[in-house]
Amino acid sequence: MQVLSVNLGDRSYPIYIGEGLLSQPELLTRHIRGRQLCIISNDRIAPLYMDKLCSSLTGLQISKVILPDGESHKTLEIWASIFDTLLAEKHNRTTTLIALGGGVVGDMTGFAAACYQRGVDFIQIPTTLLSMVDSSVGGKTGVNHPLGKNMIGAFYQPQCVLADISLLSSLPSRELSAGIAEIIKYGLISDYDFFVWLENNIDALLGGDAFALTYAVQRSCENKAAVVAQDEREGGLRAILNFGHTFGHAIETAQGYGNWLHGEAVGAGMAMAADLSWRRGAISDSELARIVDLLHKAKLPTKAPADMSPAQFMELMGVDKKVLDGRLRLVLLESMGKAITTSDIDLVMLQQTFDASKAVI
Amino acid sequence: MQVLSVNLGDRSYPIYIGEGLLSQPELLTRHIRGRQLCIISNDRIAPLYMDKLCSSLTGLQISKVILPDGESHKTLEIWASIFDTLLAEKHNRTTTLIALGGGVVGDMTGFAAACYQRGVDFIQIPTTLLSMVDSSVGGKTGVNHPLGKNMIGAFYQPQCVLADISLLSSLPSRELSAGIAEIIKYGLISDYDFFVWLENNIDALLGGDAFALTYAVQRSCENKAAVVAQDEREGGLRAILNFGHTFGHAIETAQGYGNWLHGEAVGAGMAMAADLSWRRGAISDSELARIVDLLHKAKLPTKAPADMSPAQFMELMGVDKKVLDGRLRLVLLESMGKAITTSDIDLVMLQQTFDASKAVI
Repeated sequence: MQVLSVNLGDRSYPIYIGEGLLSQPELLTRHIRGRQLCIISNDRIAPLYMDKLCSSLTGLQISKVILPDGESHKTLEIWASIFDTLLAEKHNRTTTLIALGGGVVGDMTGFAAACYQRGVDFIQIPTTLLSMVDSSVGGKTGVNHPLGKNMIGAFYQPQCVLADISLLSSLPSRELSAGIAEIIKYGLISDYDFFVWLENNIDALLGGDAFALTYAVQRSCENKAAVVAQDEREGGLRAILNFGHTFGHAIETAQGYGNWLHGEAVGAGMAMAADLSWRRGAISDSELARIVDLLHKAKLPTKAPADMSPAQFMELMGVDKKVLDGRLRLVLLESMGKAITTSDIDLVMLQQTFDASKAVI
Repeated sequence: MQVLSVNLGDRSYPIYIGEGLLSQPELLTRHIRGRQLCIISNDRIAPLYMDKLCSSLTGLQISKVILPDGESHKTLEIWASIFDTLLAEKHNRTTTLIALGGGVVGDMTGFAAACYQRGVDFIQIPTTLLSMVDSSVGGKTGVNHPLGKNMIGAFYQPQCVLADISLLSSLPSRELSAGIAEIIKYGLISDYDFFVWLENNIDALLGGDAFALTYAVQRSCENKAAVVAQDEREGGLRAILNFGHTFGHAIETAQGYGNWLHGEAVGAGMAMAADLSWRRGAISDSELARIVDLLHKAKLPTKAPADMSPAQFMELMGVDKKVLDGRLRLVLLESMGKAITTSDIDLVMLQQTFDASKAVI
């Protein structure tokens, strides 16, 4: 087992990464300060792991909330249902919420913990590769609004994260690839050596090799933690974590949440951001080709949906929260393994990226 | 004009207190960092002051949200409607929300600011005496749930508070008394000299005397700020601010939010807490009589509703968030001008307080 510490002063917490961690309840109980627990999961994950988790936790009042699975249910209304259970079962301020699921469950549970009685403890047990490398670090919680993704939420840190690699054995291959998208992102924005490691180990990751997955989760979390520790509330540096996401969010919004997986949209979004970076001269032809090739090997889309027009992209990117005072800001590559945030965007080049990135029908 | 600083490190902010402040826009504009504003008010206050406020703020994109007036509308559903406007009118992360109204508007606006894009700026312009002395300091924001008051919310600090005493001229006398309830509270829990001042100046306050009101608001906010600065997130000391509130919340819940004003329920609740403190020997017969007399002169109820049974009180106080791990904790007086929090409650005495505090039908 690897233990990674996310350093945020009095909000610091550990991430436990390894195989079979769900069978080690002491990893959780050391972080539970009261006698009440509420485990929040979804209707796909709960049948697989809820009983196992509950049976390992004795002597506690345990409530359960089972949410409908999927990004389309990451709404204020579904989120509010968590409070119905917490209050009906008289959870007090010392309760701990446990998120057992992917990013949607984690985001909604963390946001519920941030707001229940103005803040109670929570623990993340991510069950997807994406949530292990993305939601585990950073404290971003929230829900979607019909007019924008993640528009309502809070920065709120968990007591600990339990990343049990064994849970990934039940993950559909499409979701494994979606998680690898965020892993590739860390290589591109801040860790070129890791990008090279990924080029050499992509097949092991896709094959579910536990050693490779543990290493990739650990190194991704380390990269993210280093950024977040410097900029917990996204004042500046942290924006580089959104590499590929402004394009990706536009794709997700246009397609309706849930039709493309988040990681798939980020995959296409990173290809678009890499394309624009290449047009600016920041990376070479062969470097752009290596990025697209790795995304392709990871079974991720590298093109935007065929039915999305440049005008639709611009409209959707205009309401994205990464726009400061109405001016478009994008995260682009300065070189392989180094990202920057810039509002100095050549709209002709951007148009060329839209044209070049459109899938052929 | 008085300027009081609430000292909370990098979350410190000023409270401006005085007459005619709404005509001094520079007090606001120095705290507005973007070009977007959203003024949130209710359908009783907006017709009185919205135009005046808007006309003084030039060169800004101003959106308006008018909420239905009253505690019964302090719900997640009404709160969520604020986001509909913010997103439809493309407010970005540099926007500032302004709460123009009483505690309900302030609590919902602050909570919306805490959650919109995971946190934007907000400013409080309280229009009731209660919100000037209570909501102005402390950063408590939130909404009610059918199973409990203020159960969903956040600790979130404003950029500044503008307490314009002139706005109180439109306040119904019943609401003026409700505000005086919280003012009396500060005298009881932490400032005996202020309690004596209130005994001598209660008629001036009820008569709307601007000098007396300015002084009472300032001294109340100073008392609250001193407590909050030591305990921003209600770990311990801050609980004394809930003097009278555990009883009061039970009354509000039993009567349905909005039938008794919050300050009225707190008035009766403080009389009950004082009664129990007297039974424990903490205050004398004459001190108890002075407390009840001041509440009475302030035109506040000093008895619980006739139809509330002790069993109903216990049930409702059992789900109150001031219960730690299932054990009842109450704020009581240790002496005049000094409150303590204790879970050492004699249930026989508590029963006697319920019996003695019941209004005669």
